[in-house]
Amino acid sequence: MINLDLANIEEEIEKRGLNESQKARVKTDFMKNLSEKAHKFYGGKMQTVPKAGVFGFNWFNVWYTPGVSKVSTIIRDDNDAAYDLSNKGNYVAVVSDSTRVLGDGDCTPPGGLGVMEGKAFLMKYLGGVDATALCIDSRNSKGEHDPDKIIEFVKMVQPGFGAINLEDISQPNCYKVLDTLREECDIPVWHDDAQGTACVTLAGLINAVKLADKKLEEVKIVFLGAGASNSTIARIVIQAGANPANIVVFDSKGPLNRDRKDIEEDKRFYRKWELCQKTNPGKIETFSEAMTGADVLIALSKQGPDTVSPVDIKKMASKSIVFACANPVPEIYPYAAKAAGAFIVATGRGDFPNQVNNSVGFPGILKGALLVRAKKISDGMTIAAAKSLAKYAEERGITPDNIIATMEEPGVFPCEAADVAMQAIEEGLARVIMTRDEVFKKAEEEISYSRNLIESMEKGGYIKKVPIEMINTAFEEAIQSI
Amino acid sequence: MINLDLANIEEEIEKRGLNESQKARVKTDFMKNLSEKAHKFYGGKMQTVPKAGVFGFNWFNVWYTPGVSKVSTIIRDDNDAAYDLSNKGNYVAVVSDSTRVLGDGDCTPPGGLGVMEGKAFLMKYLGGVDATALCIDSRNSKGEHDPDKIIEFVKMVQPGFGAINLEDISQPNCYKVLDTLREECDIPVWHDDAQGTACVTLAGLINAVKLADKKLEEVKIVFLGAGASNSTIARIVIQAGANPANIVVFDSKGPLNRDRKDIEEDKRFYRKWELCQKTNPGKIETFSEAMTGADVLIALSKQGPDTVSPVDIKKMASKSIVFACANPVPEIYPYAAKAAGAFIVATGRGDFPNQVNNSVGFPGILKGALLVRAKKISDGMTIAAAKSLAKYAEERGITPDNIIATMEEPGVFPCEAADVAMQAIEEGLARVIMTRDEVFKKAEEEISYSRNLIESMEKGGYIKKVPIEMINTAFEEAIQSI
Repeated sequence: MINLDLANIEEEIEKRGLNESQKARVKTDFMKNLSEKAHKFYGGKMQTVPKAGVFGFNWFNVWYTPGVSKVSTIIRDDNDAAYDLSNKGNYVAVVSDSTRVLGDGDCTPPGGLGVMEGKAFLMKYLGGVDATALCIDSRNSKGEHDPDKIIEFVKMVQPGFGAINLEDISQPNCYKVLDTLREECDIPVWHDDAQGTACVTLAGLINAVKLADKKLEEVKIVFLGAGASNSTIARIVIQAGANPANIVVFDSKGPLNRDRKDIEEDKRFYRKWELCQKTNPGKIETFSEAMTGADVLIALSKQGPDTVSPVDIKKMASKSIVFACANPVPEIYPYAAKAAGAFIVATGRGDFPNQVNNSVGFPGILKGALLVRAKKISDGMTIAAAKSLAKYAEERGITPDNIIATMEEPGVFPCEAADVAMQAIEEGLARVIMTRDEVFKKAEEEISYSRNLIESMEKGGYIKKVPIEMINTAFEEAIQSI
Repeated sequence: MINLDLANIEEEIEKRGLNESQKARVKTDFMKNLSEKAHKFYGGKMQTVPKAGVFGFNWFNVWYTPGVSKVSTIIRDDNDAAYDLSNKGNYVAVVSDSTRVLGDGDCTPPGGLGVMEGKAFLMKYLGGVDATALCIDSRNSKGEHDPDKIIEFVKMVQPGFGAINLEDISQPNCYKVLDTLREECDIPVWHDDAQGTACVTLAGLINAVKLADKKLEEVKIVFLGAGASNSTIARIVIQAGANPANIVVFDSKGPLNRDRKDIEEDKRFYRKWELCQKTNPGKIETFSEAMTGADVLIALSKQGPDTVSPVDIKKMASKSIVFACANPVPEIYPYAAKAAGAFIVATGRGDFPNQVNNSVGFPGILKGALLVRAKKISDGMTIAAAKSLAKYAEERGITPDNIIATMEEPGVFPCEAADVAMQAIEEGLARVIMTRDEVFKKAEEEISYSRNLIESMEKGGYIKKVPIEMINTAFEEAIQSI
């Protein structure tokens, strides 16, 4: 029997006499089956609830007309008053056009709701941040997904939110959308797939390099994959100190360099073109050549397990660092990479060591940005968050199999919030000035509020327990489909 | 001392030796002062909270990746599955461009947040419906408020919501926005200022006519004001059975009739032109002439108290019915109308008898529409809601000073939801078929859930009590400003 906390899944799978590949499939299928059933059981995951009291019906004269008139006119005369008088300051819109929903590609506009509500769930639980899913239809009259429509939409919706989290927008639209909105909005616009992944990857890389007794400024890095996420990782890692001359980036057509006319000519890929101009000055041509003597591989390319071979890993320098982050199957399994000599291996998966998981990033980053009412989240703030994450892990102890904190360590989020907020203040991007300690305490308090509220709703029956039979039916169905 | 429940305001005001006009001002100013302070105390009114459990961190593999992938692909293959697998089916977007925020006019986009969050609050508390405020910037590149931008916005955002509540959009934009979206969206688009007010006014009118021993089909009705609300009331009252030949509608330039070229020529006012063609065939020219022998006056024009004079009321037929609904000061005070012979007087205010208050309408109407996953809210459904409201009041007893239920009568909302749902099914507008009893019970259950949850949050300290000193400071400030 699998328990309500799902903590004994591995043991239960162990009992069924399956091979490794079957075990992995049963586990994923179980999660998927249970996901369908549990979403149906609750009718989705998020709701809206007052945070203000009704101590008698006369209070509606305060919360609504005639009293609320004063709130309207105060905000009219000073738009920033909305941070004090409405939920704007703690409210994030999770905006997606559902064109690249996790590993499932274009899922049609409502298809992203499960993921975006999930994001809102994580934001509240981990970061004490309110959020709503806005899965939008970005098709224009020709039926094309139009980045300008997304830009227009976000600009229209921003007055009521403290920040925007863009999510699962396919490339190249995502570049234009993010870069335009970062310039033109006066609240932070965060693209978690790109900036969030870059932040958490950089955090892991900082600690991995430290454990390998190397320096970020000196390491040779190979990037496999040049999608929105990996090209942003490359950009942020360079800004954090890596030498672009030591970097080679591969996309599906080969290595990026100044000769890549196809990228130069397609203006929508200007972010990739920047990398073409900066990296790989020696015009290394093959992946095998690039891997020879490389210190770090950062792969966010296509699912493995044989996208990267042990032969490639063997060519790397000593104490090599491998980020194999394709989901759900990494480009090379950690055991295979380690057998080929890798010193540290990170993946996107929670069931292997060193998970590179955005969930340890965005809740704290957004909380910090919101608390000081930031106008933007700059690359500097992203790097500050990565350093904060790295430092948090280092202080509680890092090893080659534990380079980064997990989302189960609640202490990480207020730290991150505080460091991001301080960086925002330093860069002149904050609307209010607070001390690090003030941000830390406020973040800690609001995160505790969220967790305690959810726990009390579970105890009070406002969140029902999922029936154990439902969990075990999902499991048996996964076993039978093998 | 005013108590936390604000129930003893009148008594406390009584003690201060003020005249009637001062008393009214103190009361309104007190609500406004307290509104500012209390909004600041809580930082707005609404938050987002999970409705699904976290019984261990492995549950995030169910609520998010990898499990949620199955939810994405199921919805991709059948968009209606979003009603089962996400919160779409109980989620309403309260969309406003804040150009006509209650009595305060254009408040700039974030200026509507207090009102729209208030609407979301009422929806949850009274109707068990989740809602979010979306206060949008509808200005185009010329700086004009552009109805096409609102239309585009709502069409983009609709995939994640079960219904749209349009609010506080100025005319004439509101007509085009509502009528276009009602046609082109496949979820209900409700304009509460117009349809909601029409529904509740019709409910009151039905019972008032009954108490006066008259028939809706026969009464002579004068409409004073032809804004979005009153022109919609006229349209709905005609559809519900009133004879347009017995109706005269006045706007700021005079009576509507077929000679009104100014309205005919401005296509944006096509709804008003429809009334010009149907009503006032005898081309009555003056308000005084129209009022002579009229059975009913429905005024939603400009603030009183002398917009309508006792002399006008005296000209009406016996057992006359007066709706004086300008806010906050009615076109004529109820005592003055009664002294001039009115049999029944209704206003928009909660401190006089017979409040015509949308809050007794939209929570139940939207709940009913959502429960059967309606594609639209038709005029037929609006009229069904009005009849349901009227019947509910009649069954628990009506008098000339009590023609309509108030929002303090929780029983009214499930009834309304059930009757609206049945009408949706009858008109072929429902995606799912339920019995009246099923809708009633589900609505009742979800409304109780909301109220109990809020109460338990107050008890558990998740919603703090407003300090008594804050309430009394707001009161003293109101007294001092007299």
